[in-house]
Amino acid sequence: MHARVSAPGRAAVGEGEGAGSALDRLVRTDWLLPTAAAGVFGFTAKFESALAGVQSALTRIHPTGTDGPSWHAPVVPRGPIERAQYTDSFPHLLGTVHALPPSTGDGAGTREDSRVPTDTVLAPAVCYSVYPSLADTTSAGPRCFDVAGTCYRHEATSEVGRFRSFRMREFVTVGTEETALAWREEWTERCRTLFAGLGIAVRVQEASDPFFGPGADFMRSSQIEQSLKYEFVAPVRRGDAGTAIASVNLHKDHLGERFAIGLPDGGWAHSSCAAFGLERIVLALVHVHGDDLADWPAAA
Amino acid sequence: MHARVSAPGRAAVGEGEGAGSALDRLVRTDWLLPTAAAGVFGFTAKFESALAGVQSALTRIHPTGTDGPSWHAPVVPRGPIERAQYTDSFPHLLGTVHALPPSTGDGAGTREDSRVPTDTVLAPAVCYSVYPSLADTTSAGPRCFDVAGTCYRHEATSEVGRFRSFRMREFVTVGTEETALAWREEWTERCRTLFAGLGIAVRVQEASDPFFGPGADFMRSSQIEQSLKYEFVAPVRRGDAGTAIASVNLHKDHLGERFAIGLPDGGWAHSSCAAFGLERIVLALVHVHGDDLADWPAAA
Repeated sequence: MHARVSAPGRAAVGEGEGAGSALDRLVRTDWLLPTAAAGVFGFTAKFESALAGVQSALTRIHPTGTDGPSWHAPVVPRGPIERAQYTDSFPHLLGTVHALPPSTGDGAGTREDSRVPTDTVLAPAVCYSVYPSLADTTSAGPRCFDVAGTCYRHEATSEVGRFRSFRMREFVTVGTEETALAWREEWTERCRTLFAGLGIAVRVQEASDPFFGPGADFMRSSQIEQSLKYEFVAPVRRGDAGTAIASVNLHKDHLGERFAIGLPDGGWAHSSCAAFGLERIVLALVHVHGDDLADWPAAA
Repeated sequence: MHARVSAPGRAAVGEGEGAGSALDRLVRTDWLLPTAAAGVFGFTAKFESALAGVQSALTRIHPTGTDGPSWHAPVVPRGPIERAQYTDSFPHLLGTVHALPPSTGDGAGTREDSRVPTDTVLAPAVCYSVYPSLADTTSAGPRCFDVAGTCYRHEATSEVGRFRSFRMREFVTVGTEETALAWREEWTERCRTLFAGLGIAVRVQEASDPFFGPGADFMRSSQIEQSLKYEFVAPVRRGDAGTAIASVNLHKDHLGERFAIGLPDGGWAHSSCAAFGLERIVLALVHVHGDDLADWPAAA
């Protein structure tokens, strides 16, 4: 039925990799389409079918029901990223968007070296689209969000599973300290159930944010002490000791304070999010269930 | 059922716009989520439901069947964009991705003004993921591709419908001159049928590439003379005289030559693509059929 449609990139099988590598296998078995940029891929219709299944599974486990996520652009205003202090904590992971200055016409102004920063950066996580919408207000009650989009992190390495450009689904709450704590606990249990249903054996581990840049040792140890982050770790390729495919994060009132989201009784709102790396979950499913979608369990 | 999930951005209704504006209306009626960056939006679950319907309609009209598009990252390697001469033709529309240099650690190296261009730029169109996969080869026969992804164009204006970040679906062929010409003719007719079925009254017009930058007058007039581009134009908001929601493009052997895609009998491959602006099509549907998805025709 679809004999005549092919996917770009097949000709580049195993580009820059040994023929037996994990990447080569994923290309050969019709999951990934390599590009000349390390960690940047196209995803075949087969991969997208699996990813849509993961999205449906995530929609189904939502405790109070969701119509599905809102979808957010891969570029976001720079202001909220600075306000969240991402630019301070992870400057090396942030991709910024540059363009030619609008005032220049032809000639010198079109030289590549005359590019200047625009008002946008590449989104490092989807929940940075949530907090600005509540900024400088007093929250009337707990708010829940279901969001998704494409993120970018300027990773230094590009082993299979470490995408520079990847899609993320997040369930976020903003409310009282009790609300945020309960969200963290409930979503940690919900993730265990989800991954068990998908047939993925996960290890749950306390973690510092793996994206903390150099010099962040104090923040890292402090985060572990307070159990702010649980990662769900599973192999995403043969020989992989484990890659984080999801995480549940408690931000305490860090983002509430940064975005001036007040509580009715005073103090800053607390927040918590459950974040799912959609491509990594698909790779974990491929690793467990193999290359034929017909062999996958119905829940996936 | 979904009382507890809300979408980010509701609090920012009409930000920077009059309360009766087209943007305000789209925010108030639960389609768009504004951000602080002009032309950059989040899309509600309701919008995504409509966009999924458009994707299904596009999949259904494919003449030889398709499993759906491959999905391409919003960032692409810089090399193919330069090789396609996009950097020469539309330098002002291109967004480039910059990051801190890898060799620097803390301190001076993390200063925002020390950012340098990376190996990636924001994709200006999805079909730039196709031609590199065929580059420097001889094409054995006509190839067809079904691709989608998020594009960026650094537009100078941001009226409703002129997104800086938007999703595009493209059907691309690479083959002989006859193959490419037939593709252009067939997809032009197919688009008429598609939009009639969706209830969108389109005007089909020959056009230069509306994204040609300053100084491209020669290319523009030359392109019109050769009938290389047909646009499908429809209103996407009240008072809109017409916005291009799709286009069918004949590239002749321009890209075949640039990417050194040879034909078995000699000469360079010709190419043609049918490109669909997914968000603009949704806005055209909203404009015609209103704010309640239950009132929309089944084909949409």
